Amino acid sequence: MAGTDRRRKSEAADFCREDAPAIILVEPQLGENIGMVARAMLNCGLIDLRIVNPREGWDRDKAEKSSSGATMVLERARFYTSTADAVADLEIVYATTARPRDMVKPMVTPRQAATESVELATRKLKTGVLFGKEAKGLHNDDVALADAILHLPLNPAFASLNLAQAVLLIGYEWFTMNDETEGRYIPQGRGKAARPATKDEVIGFYEHLERELDASGFLRVEAKRPSMVRNIRNIFARIDLTLQEVQTLRGIVAFLANGRSGGPGKKDQD
Amino acid sequence: MAGTDRRRKSEAADFCREDAPAIILVEPQLGENIGMVARAMLNCGLIDLRIVNPREGWDRDKAEKSSSGATMVLERARFYTSTADAVADLEIVYATTARPRDMVKPMVTPRQAATESVELATRKLKTGVLFGKEAKGLHNDDVALADAILHLPLNPAFASLNLAQAVLLIGYEWFTMNDETEGRYIPQGRGKAARPATKDEVIGFYEHLERELDASGFLRVEAKRPSMVRNIRNIFARIDLTLQEVQTLRGIVAFLANGRSGGPGKKDQD
Repeated sequence: MAGTDRRRKSEAADFCREDAPAIILVEPQLGENIGMVARAMLNCGLIDLRIVNPREGWDRDKAEKSSSGATMVLERARFYTSTADAVADLEIVYATTARPRDMVKPMVTPRQAATESVELATRKLKTGVLFGKEAKGLHNDDVALADAILHLPLNPAFASLNLAQAVLLIGYEWFTMNDETEGRYIPQGRGKAARPATKDEVIGFYEHLERELDASGFLRVEAKRPSMVRNIRNIFARIDLTLQEVQTLRGIVAFLANGRSGGPGKKDQD
Repeated sequence: MAGTDRRRKSEAADFCREDAPAIILVEPQLGENIGMVARAMLNCGLIDLRIVNPREGWDRDKAEKSSSGATMVLERARFYTSTADAVADLEIVYATTARPRDMVKPMVTPRQAATESVELATRKLKTGVLFGKEAKGLHNDDVALADAILHLPLNPAFASLNLAQAVLLIGYEWFTMNDETEGRYIPQGRGKAARPATKDEVIGFYEHLERELDASGFLRVEAKRPSMVRNIRNIFARIDLTLQEVQTLRGIVAFLANGRSGGPGKKDQD
């Protein structure tokens, strides 16, 4: 079990980058929330957790439990007695807060902050994101330390998130900046026949189907036959069939045709 | 209080769209999770919650409590006895699950699904997203009903999210598709002097500063003066100063200069 745990941890760490933004929690109140933040961070490949003046007697055990196994983040967490100390080594700091009315400060979306963080990291500049205590948010003096306000675009009349969810959205934007998953793709299945069918294989199915439709009388009106054939081919052309699926469809046609003619017919064996 | 609640609800509803994707929870186990899903939905302007066979005796009170006020989503929730019934009126359905090994099915990212959902909505086509039960995920038969697998790009070695967090990320992508917040901007403050300073006002400050720097001897090396002035101007030119900030900076210069010369000098009054 220990071996499994160690392997799992090292794998999770493989997807974490030291140049990722630091997450700085200022005066967090509950161990559970710190643990859930650690979990959200590891979900998104973030590993640098900094905690400023947690409430005296916060529950480390509860933090571990609610981290769902993200103990590596908690083990590496560093503690500070002031926000200035916690951000001392960073070049650019974002503060998560509602727009402060009396400060002139750039506002950025999480996507913009992620874009900037990735670009800054290429220049060896390290960023961090400040989060205030659960209900009250950040002190204005901490906000004044930041280069920009990071504001989450959500339902303006119902925007309150818990701490871990805010970390998750911001970390998710950072993670997806570095992620190269295509927006939409069809993954290759297992086995030889899981590969995409060639056009020759697909056309073989079309011709098989059309022979049976001719035999059954479905295409009996000669004038309409060409457009009907095209419409039917267009239905199947949208599917991006695998070889296996072509074989399945030919089997369906053969069995339906056999049912009609009674028993497997020789014409289906091509 | 009731009035406040009602107003708050109606405001939150103003940012919800009927053409937003439906969220379909299949066999959810815990009332708390249903409540947290409702909260995440309202955060993201989603209002159409559908629940298939919740565990017998799930706790409606706990759902309300954990919804943090998103009761309007719970009140509108519809219940079904099969997934097929729950998706019957939808045109396109996404299934959230790990990649199924034995199915050939397109994989989409949350951003792609959001892009598609917005585009489909313009054609009056309605989408939905299926979520399986907390630990086990979706049945393969439910996945087979879906048009595509929606896969969250997260740390592959530590990707597990709770139900509400998965809903939040997917809803967030949908909400930001419709959100026009600029990536980075400086909001206008309150009051007359909160407006951006004109170049004339900024140059007035530069000249004021440079007069005092001449008087103090800081710019005494004539050959270096032009480049030093340009460097100093470039520091302040990066700030995008407001009029109020220009006034603050001029006050700073005047007071520092007065400290040196003893008492406010007439030359600072221009």
